[in-house]
Amino acid sequence: MALPKRIAIHEVGPREGMQIEKNPVATADKIRLVDMLSECNFPEIEVTSFVSPKWVPQMADAEEVVAGIKARPGTAYTGIYLNSQGMVRALKTNKLTVLGKLSITASETFSKKNTNRTLEETLAEAEERIAAAREWNVKITEIGVMSAFGCNYQGDIAPELVISLIDRLIGTARENDLPIELIQLADTMGWANPLSIRRLVGMVQDKWPEYKINLHLHDTRGLGLANVFAALEMGVDDFDSAVAGLGGCPYAGFKDAPGNIVTEDLVHLCQEIGVETGVDLDKLVEVAREAERIVGHPLPGKVMRGGDLSSYRRKLQTTV
Amino acid sequence: MALPKRIAIHEVGPREGMQIEKNPVATADKIRLVDMLSECNFPEIEVTSFVSPKWVPQMADAEEVVAGIKARPGTAYTGIYLNSQGMVRALKTNKLTVLGKLSITASETFSKKNTNRTLEETLAEAEERIAAAREWNVKITEIGVMSAFGCNYQGDIAPELVISLIDRLIGTARENDLPIELIQLADTMGWANPLSIRRLVGMVQDKWPEYKINLHLHDTRGLGLANVFAALEMGVDDFDSAVAGLGGCPYAGFKDAPGNIVTEDLVHLCQEIGVETGVDLDKLVEVAREAERIVGHPLPGKVMRGGDLSSYRRKLQTTV
Repeated sequence: MALPKRIAIHEVGPREGMQIEKNPVATADKIRLVDMLSECNFPEIEVTSFVSPKWVPQMADAEEVVAGIKARPGTAYTGIYLNSQGMVRALKTNKLTVLGKLSITASETFSKKNTNRTLEETLAEAEERIAAAREWNVKITEIGVMSAFGCNYQGDIAPELVISLIDRLIGTARENDLPIELIQLADTMGWANPLSIRRLVGMVQDKWPEYKINLHLHDTRGLGLANVFAALEMGVDDFDSAVAGLGGCPYAGFKDAPGNIVTEDLVHLCQEIGVETGVDLDKLVEVAREAERIVGHPLPGKVMRGGDLSSYRRKLQTTV
Repeated sequence: MALPKRIAIHEVGPREGMQIEKNPVATADKIRLVDMLSECNFPEIEVTSFVSPKWVPQMADAEEVVAGIKARPGTAYTGIYLNSQGMVRALKTNKLTVLGKLSITASETFSKKNTNRTLEETLAEAEERIAAAREWNVKITEIGVMSAFGCNYQGDIAPELVISLIDRLIGTARENDLPIELIQLADTMGWANPLSIRRLVGMVQDKWPEYKINLHLHDTRGLGLANVFAALEMGVDDFDSAVAGLGGCPYAGFKDAPGNIVTEDLVHLCQEIGVETGVDLDKLVEVAREAERIVGHPLPGKVMRGGDLSSYRRKLQTTV
């Protein structure tokens, strides 16, 4: 398939990044980071998560962060939540775009570990989630499968299992007249490779051509951009990523394991192969360097070190 | 094209890595690094370079390093050299595999900067190199083009230029009955992307199907493994890489710019897509961690942090 003309990039660094940092990041720094990202022209910035401060103390200032940011027209600011309590907190900010998602983890072991629920229990709970969303007029537009390619606690995940889980969630969504638009496949622990991306994306496209696909990829083992390129050639045009590679993988069993794919490296890849992102790469590279200063340790981003090629091309034209 | 069944990986970390480190690395550490790499079963390890200690003081101990390593059967130990003086130094170790190469930089600007010669001067010198190699019975088996995709000092390099340079070098080689086997395309400063890899590799394959292609790729902007995957699908089965990503790019204009692609991440990619490398990944990951300890700062390798998937699979099978 031809490469898409344009893709949408959802910046998740402020959320994925801040929840893993060991040293507390000041609320003002979080706000500045989001405000700098706002200058880069993303369709969406995931600002924070509304989870229990008991479990994730780094996110205790979620409301403060949202209150502090300057929301720019053209960008949707979102937060993630895991239950109706979190959803109501997000709504109460009166500033975020709040959408619902039916999500499930394809790994039984990880599901139990992470959410204390089996896959069947998660599926059974979908009705409750739908009821809560309906009560607050939150549209459920997305179906998501985490660990869709493999899991550090369970091993490889068969694409057939992922398809059957999506099928059941879509069944529930249709029974409830939900306006599903998108299926998210998340490679939560970096198990995907270009061949497995092609296989699973192809199966989802064949079965549900009416839905958009989003890929949430982690670069745990360095295959992030190779996977993106494989997906682009399948026509996928919707990706999550984190500026500078903020984040890291809390499940890897080694410290400093890389997390999400790096936004500026993704934008740069797209620029080089003629796929538009709408993102201002010059400004984004500055944000990446600032993100590194904020967390106080090296982050995995490469373009912020190697320099983006369009800036070399501009420089060479003006000095020759 | 189908993926190759097996590829050859040339480990260049000891050479590329040590020449860029600011703090001197002890000779004993260099020797230990090569000896650990020898356990991993590479067809070739590039041990050092025979260049002037005046210009590259980090390589002043080239002879000592070669004398110290335990050469293992099945691995060719090599060193690079830029002139006949260096070639003779390599020969005098009486331990290295010494082969000749006709090489050129596709960037006129970089050629002048790096070697103080224009492209025409470099081409003209080929006859001298051939004579020196003949005198010492050194076989010239390789043609190499550096900066074959782009250059920080000159910008994009047209594939047509690269083809014409190879054509002239092959002409010289044929006139002199050289046993050329391989064409090396080096992305010295990380300008390649999967599309430009396909284009140039395809052009070389179409014009010279009789020669093997080697890719020497740098990961300066994070596209290294995406480029490898594109090349594998073109049937390329010969790659250079550096353990842990030892090296870095001295031309990038930013400090800490990433250098060569990371050997263990490359081996891991191959493992995941069913391409054999013959390399022992478990041992290699240990070498990568040791390389990081030796240089005393973080290196770009990801698998040594994220953990290789085969080790997860083994662990899960034994504990379930």
